[in-house]
Amino acid sequence: MSDRLRLYSYWRSSAAYRVRIGLNLKGLPYDLEPVHLVRDGGQQHHPDYARLNPQHLVPTLMHGKRVLRQSLAILEYLDESWPERPLMPSSARDRARVRALAQLVACDIHPLGNLRVLRFFDEEWRVPPVEREAWVRHWVGEGLQAMETLLANDLVTGTYCHGEAPGLADCCLIPQLYNARRFEVDLSPYPTIARIEQACLALPAFIHASPERQPDAPGPAPLDA
Amino acid sequence: MSDRLRLYSYWRSSAAYRVRIGLNLKGLPYDLEPVHLVRDGGQQHHPDYARLNPQHLVPTLMHGKRVLRQSLAILEYLDESWPERPLMPSSARDRARVRALAQLVACDIHPLGNLRVLRFFDEEWRVPPVEREAWVRHWVGEGLQAMETLLANDLVTGTYCHGEAPGLADCCLIPQLYNARRFEVDLSPYPTIARIEQACLALPAFIHASPERQPDAPGPAPLDA
Repeated sequence: MSDRLRLYSYWRSSAAYRVRIGLNLKGLPYDLEPVHLVRDGGQQHHPDYARLNPQHLVPTLMHGKRVLRQSLAILEYLDESWPERPLMPSSARDRARVRALAQLVACDIHPLGNLRVLRFFDEEWRVPPVEREAWVRHWVGEGLQAMETLLANDLVTGTYCHGEAPGLADCCLIPQLYNARRFEVDLSPYPTIARIEQACLALPAFIHASPERQPDAPGPAPLDA
Repeated sequence: MSDRLRLYSYWRSSAAYRVRIGLNLKGLPYDLEPVHLVRDGGQQHHPDYARLNPQHLVPTLMHGKRVLRQSLAILEYLDESWPERPLMPSSARDRARVRALAQLVACDIHPLGNLRVLRFFDEEWRVPPVEREAWVRHWVGEGLQAMETLLANDLVTGTYCHGEAPGLADCCLIPQLYNARRFEVDLSPYPTIARIEQACLALPAFIHASPERQPDAPGPAPLDA
């Protein structure tokens, strides 16, 4: 049995993007298996993939024959299985802070602007695009405002969300900001977040995980950078 | 400084209910501080509470002067701080499974049927109640179907979501089922879930955490049971 890591990913999925960052930060090589969420009626619905992930969602990580689901659970699994270059701080108190920041994004912002939700509005309720986009901006704005407050008012915030090394909260924040730009969210009210984003986006782990760098991204990929 | 635990809770909040179960399962005494999400324009918006929780959401747990937010982060904090009666299994593989089940509920079901979301539909889009309820049923049904598949097809599922002791995944599942009943979701397609629910609801930790048993629940509280 191979112990290779194989990530089922979609270039623009926030949740897959989180795991790509985490794998890169930890220096773990992996194979990428694109799952196109639109093409072929949505490859996430194909029976072979649905057997791996009955939620029909990305990402899924295979570690050898072991199947891992849910981006935050996957990131903590990686951190527990390969303790080098930790994504999590060492004390219970700090771990709770980092998890709470990650969950603010993963539970309270991202699920509301997900592709399946926007599709429901379009197909079931015929919500016009301008209102669907206002919906996303509403929840992203509310969530980022709270995140800004939590980050700006805490001395434990450093160059990154928690101290001087990027970790789990940064893995969640950066994809959410990418998503926010797609929906033209005004990010100027969040200076602490902007500063952390700038620090993250200078790191190869984040650069190589970015949607545009994925093999399944449309358009000509840059040759190098 | 007191090291008491103080939980800011709302009787019917799924996320607060999860933490009440976890505190009870671990046998940790706590003070309950009700935050009424409807009364007074929503007590979660009052400045004193918003300083503790800039998201204006429940629950918040105070451990002495330490402020903890986000139900899953709180539950893991409790488990790491008081290792007795663990809510989490011991291996990285099993922890990943339990976290993925918990996050299926906390990231992919619960956020879509939350009070603030239903209010948005009512106040911003004037979605009629019957359509709002169909929306909730849609996402609860989709999520529970995946949860049923994951539980039914895994030998590690026991009397509870993971083995023979209740834990983090059960803390999330039971409040979601309470919520599903409020929206008249048909639970008959989920026999494994129903069996686990029955086992949980026989335990004092779950009974005493239930919404109806909370001091802030409306109506006459039962004298004893």
